[in-house]
Amino acid sequence: MSKAKGSRTERELLHMFWEAGHFCLRVAGSGSMPFPCPDLLVGKEGRSFAIECKSCKSDRRYITETQINELKEFASGFGAEPWIAIRFDRTGWKFLKPEELGRNGGKNFFVSKDLCLTKGITFRELIASKDSSEDT
Amino acid sequence: MSKAKGSRTERELLHMFWEAGHFCLRVAGSGSMPFPCPDLLVGKEGRSFAIECKSCKSDRRYITETQINELKEFASGFGAEPWIAIRFDRTGWKFLKPEELGRNGGKNFFVSKDLCLTKGITFRELIASKDSSEDT
Repeated sequence: MSKAKGSRTERELLHMFWEAGHFCLRVAGSGSMPFPCPDLLVGKEGRSFAIECKSCKSDRRYITETQINELKEFASGFGAEPWIAIRFDRTGWKFLKPEELGRNGGKNFFVSKDLCLTKGITFRELIASKDSSEDT
Repeated sequence: MSKAKGSRTERELLHMFWEAGHFCLRVAGSGSMPFPCPDLLVGKEGRSFAIECKSCKSDRRYITETQINELKEFASGFGAEPWIAIRFDRTGWKFLKPEELGRNGGKNFFVSKDLCLTKGITFRELIASKDSSEDT
């Protein structure tokens, strides 16, 4: 994914969250910082999401274990929930938790169209969802 | 303050927080977004700060009421504490809470060297401080 396209898809999500009444910010230089950072941080009424955004032309997209660990570590530092937002061409955004990603035998994680269909939730479902950590 | 100088002072604080073991991010386009956003978000072990950064050559710097209200609103959405970070030329960073700022009779707030001396806390004091909302 080119840097410009990455920024464009992040901005699209940013506007969706603001229009839905959530505070949302893009992280400056999230891909090029010397520190692990997600692409977006979203907050509403004290609940917050740390989001890694991916868009994809093919049916499957790989994400390194390091990237997922950093997302989880960062989210935990902020008291935020880690989420992966993915949009395949000609589909809407889907949201997956790190533990819902596929594993490729080795170290890498992946998201696929199939996983999005079976486990992914939509933008509306995400913002209407209850914090599952509150259930425990 | 020029945009470049603003970014430079924000990056300086960003590195200080990371070196002190805090997660910290700069908000992309914080001054030019159509939405209210602070300059930095800092998190550690679930406690977080939303920080508006100011640097200043003269003895006093004004901040609009709108900017302060937006900082507080944003911080509350994220469950973060709102702080103003200020550095006058040839002094270290000082941190003030919104309610510690001066009022100029009218709508505007200000920070001054005097206020920093009497009410401001240092970077070390900020990161060593306890969340005062936990006392209540």
